[in-house]
Amino acid sequence: MTPRTAPTPDPNDPGLLAPSETSLLTDQYELAMAASYHRRGMNEPAVFELFARKLPPNRHWLLFAGLGPTLRLVTELRFGEAELGYLESLDQFRPEFLDYLSEFRFSGDVDAMPEGTICFANEPLVRVTAPRIEAQVLETLLLNQLNFQTMAATKAARLVLAAGGGEPGAGHAVIDFSPRRDHGIDAAMKVARSAVIAGCGGTSNVAAAMRYGLRPVGTMAHSYVMSFDREEEAFEAFLEDFPANTTLLVDTYDSLDGVRNAIRAARAGRVELHGVRLDSGDLLELSRASRELLDEAGFTQTSIVASGDIEETKIAALVEAGAPIDLWGVGTDLGTSRDSPVVNGVYKLVADRAGAAWRGVRKLSPDKQTLPGPKQVFRAYAGDTMTGDVIGAADEDVDGEALLEPAMREGTVTSEESLEAMRARSQAQLGALPEALRRPPPAESPEPYPVSYSERLRTAAGVGADAG
Amino acid sequence: MTPRTAPTPDPNDPGLLAPSETSLLTDQYELAMAASYHRRGMNEPAVFELFARKLPPNRHWLLFAGLGPTLRLVTELRFGEAELGYLESLDQFRPEFLDYLSEFRFSGDVDAMPEGTICFANEPLVRVTAPRIEAQVLETLLLNQLNFQTMAATKAARLVLAAGGGEPGAGHAVIDFSPRRDHGIDAAMKVARSAVIAGCGGTSNVAAAMRYGLRPVGTMAHSYVMSFDREEEAFEAFLEDFPANTTLLVDTYDSLDGVRNAIRAARAGRVELHGVRLDSGDLLELSRASRELLDEAGFTQTSIVASGDIEETKIAALVEAGAPIDLWGVGTDLGTSRDSPVVNGVYKLVADRAGAAWRGVRKLSPDKQTLPGPKQVFRAYAGDTMTGDVIGAADEDVDGEALLEPAMREGTVTSEESLEAMRARSQAQLGALPEALRRPPPAESPEPYPVSYSERLRTAAGVGADAG
Repeated sequence: MTPRTAPTPDPNDPGLLAPSETSLLTDQYELAMAASYHRRGMNEPAVFELFARKLPPNRHWLLFAGLGPTLRLVTELRFGEAELGYLESLDQFRPEFLDYLSEFRFSGDVDAMPEGTICFANEPLVRVTAPRIEAQVLETLLLNQLNFQTMAATKAARLVLAAGGGEPGAGHAVIDFSPRRDHGIDAAMKVARSAVIAGCGGTSNVAAAMRYGLRPVGTMAHSYVMSFDREEEAFEAFLEDFPANTTLLVDTYDSLDGVRNAIRAARAGRVELHGVRLDSGDLLELSRASRELLDEAGFTQTSIVASGDIEETKIAALVEAGAPIDLWGVGTDLGTSRDSPVVNGVYKLVADRAGAAWRGVRKLSPDKQTLPGPKQVFRAYAGDTMTGDVIGAADEDVDGEALLEPAMREGTVTSEESLEAMRARSQAQLGALPEALRRPPPAESPEPYPVSYSERLRTAAGVGADAG
Repeated sequence: MTPRTAPTPDPNDPGLLAPSETSLLTDQYELAMAASYHRRGMNEPAVFELFARKLPPNRHWLLFAGLGPTLRLVTELRFGEAELGYLESLDQFRPEFLDYLSEFRFSGDVDAMPEGTICFANEPLVRVTAPRIEAQVLETLLLNQLNFQTMAATKAARLVLAAGGGEPGAGHAVIDFSPRRDHGIDAAMKVARSAVIAGCGGTSNVAAAMRYGLRPVGTMAHSYVMSFDREEEAFEAFLEDFPANTTLLVDTYDSLDGVRNAIRAARAGRVELHGVRLDSGDLLELSRASRELLDEAGFTQTSIVASGDIEETKIAALVEAGAPIDLWGVGTDLGTSRDSPVVNGVYKLVADRAGAAWRGVRKLSPDKQTLPGPKQVFRAYAGDTMTGDVIGAADEDVDGEALLEPAMREGTVTSEESLEAMRARSQAQLGALPEALRRPPPAESPEPYPVSYSERLRTAAGVGADAG
């Protein structure tokens, strides 16, 4: 057998991993613990749950996203020769463990909320039941993927609600313009996907549009306008080259002169002017004046697109003020969730099987207590409105809709959805939120949504009812 | 010729791109503009500059990072058959343009600050001189990569300064524990790299350690401790399996009992106890009491590692109070730069060549003015301290160190550095910052670092001197 060799590090490597290379996208301790379990034959079934202990600041709910791509990564997770060679070079792992890793395939079960589900603190979003080593090895990757995609979907949903005046119904009015501010390439791909699940109408990110079947949306940049001697000349050229569905950016020099130039250019080219984009200045005033100029010229079908550091509070205020803006291009704040850039999800051991019997496992660190045992979330409704969630034992019978569903069985993904299905769910769930939780900011801090533990869980754990 | 076909979208694709697939990681408008320039033969040389118009909130300087991997991506950027098939399916691009893209290779020049350079608002960090279409096509990818890596390096540098009481000298004391909170896989790889450039001592991210040659660091998780009946038993097992360099997590049940158990386990196993990790509770009190327990037991060489939502203000306060903490494991706040999660870099056309002559190009949108012409940054020093920067014309002769250096010529990377070189630069630059800008928070808002425009640039642009 050829001895394995660690790959030579490269300080300027592009740093992009193939799915099969993500096995080492893990905290070093996961592998150390796995090695110890392996040596000790501690590979009996265990249950881990992924949940957030607290809702992040400025958030009253989360919109769960990222499951589909994450489970694909789980099924493709392998330790190849390069990875094994590197681990061997660390002089920390026994050959038997590296041999085990060379055969690694995730063989466990996953239950999870489907993407586009509204969720709250302490609710398990994902439950992994697998041989302990396999469940442990997934931890970092699951958290890396699901925390941030849930963050992005939540922010996108809030923008969608803001654009709809508190209703998801508007839909499609928010467009992802975030690639230049997303935290890297994976973030840009997943933000676009999460945004569309949450109700956004498309993305400027061509790679994401291609990969995920999203609507690609684009206008033009200031540099295009500046590449011509006069703005009108630039507009005429762009309309000539793209006679259909073209939106012109009008604020390079003066926004209202820009609108006038756009009208003249469309007339000169005898083409429809699909839209104008305002990217700076007082958007309320400019959108009104632009609408007036467009309507006077008979361009009543021309859309007004707003962009340029657009935030949910700004959208809500402009919608409230009746600004005639049809589309919102949101970059930075959507892609980075700037007002709340972290979903603090954790992944905790809640049960393991010692011999024939399952044992509930808990931790007692201050402020970090974990309730023992596999759990399920039950959601009650009054009419079309969500009224409260109960976190119960997984095998308990509680009234309400059980939110966690089978997602993988014995290492195979058992259910995959279309983005349309996820999006339909998110829009229904956003509409079912109590009205105070849908209201766009700046709203007063609403009553928190009621989440409690079931009596059986409380009795078993000796804790109070309130899980919020 | 076989007609191209667009790939079938997959709503649950893992979403990871190979370097050659990043050509479509771009805003749709870049390609629309490129197509228009192509049709019009507008592919004469142009100059774009990447800069931030303002420093982000809570930041008084930025640490530039990400250049090396980004330039590699630029050299590997191709439009393959899948990408071309997708673009063709959009029914928007002419065959001649797609043929042009099929041969696309970046052939231009890049000048840039080397990684690990301290920089400020309005200073060009990267200057691209290339045929207009090529320069335009790079925009989104450059911003996606450089904005967030600079954000991460800046946050890491602030943590390093906080751990060093305002001096970078301490170095190595901050460890990247962020993969579970980073915004995806690319973010996790690049945060680790950026953190080490900024002075961090290692990373928990095994893939990044392998790829970039960083020090992999790991301890153990609560779930390991909970997998045994008693904490002491878990410690004994872990020390038996990893007798060297092992840090035990002591707060699963009670931190000081944990330290006692760690001491007993090390004695029982007759091994050195490399470290104990405190992950919750009052870190000042617990670190002092832990140090006392360890010293009393003769474990004077055992390190104390602190983790658990560690932030720069917390580190600064603990260092100020003299907490005996040797290593700081920072996850969320390092990886997401939670207190300032955006570097708002932009990429702007500043000059193009009309016929034989270069023409300075500027935009006038409110608050978004761009100064015309290719620029250079000159930094002055008094002794070892930076005293002020001047942004001048690229071909101007201004006193001080010119910060932008050749990085690519005719599409070939001309200088690549080791991480050690970048790190040495960042540590020297952090040490050269005026003391008020190095002070860990909560410090009063310091005087901003002086950045001005050269007289020649001001005269040409008709603006005031202050560039801050």
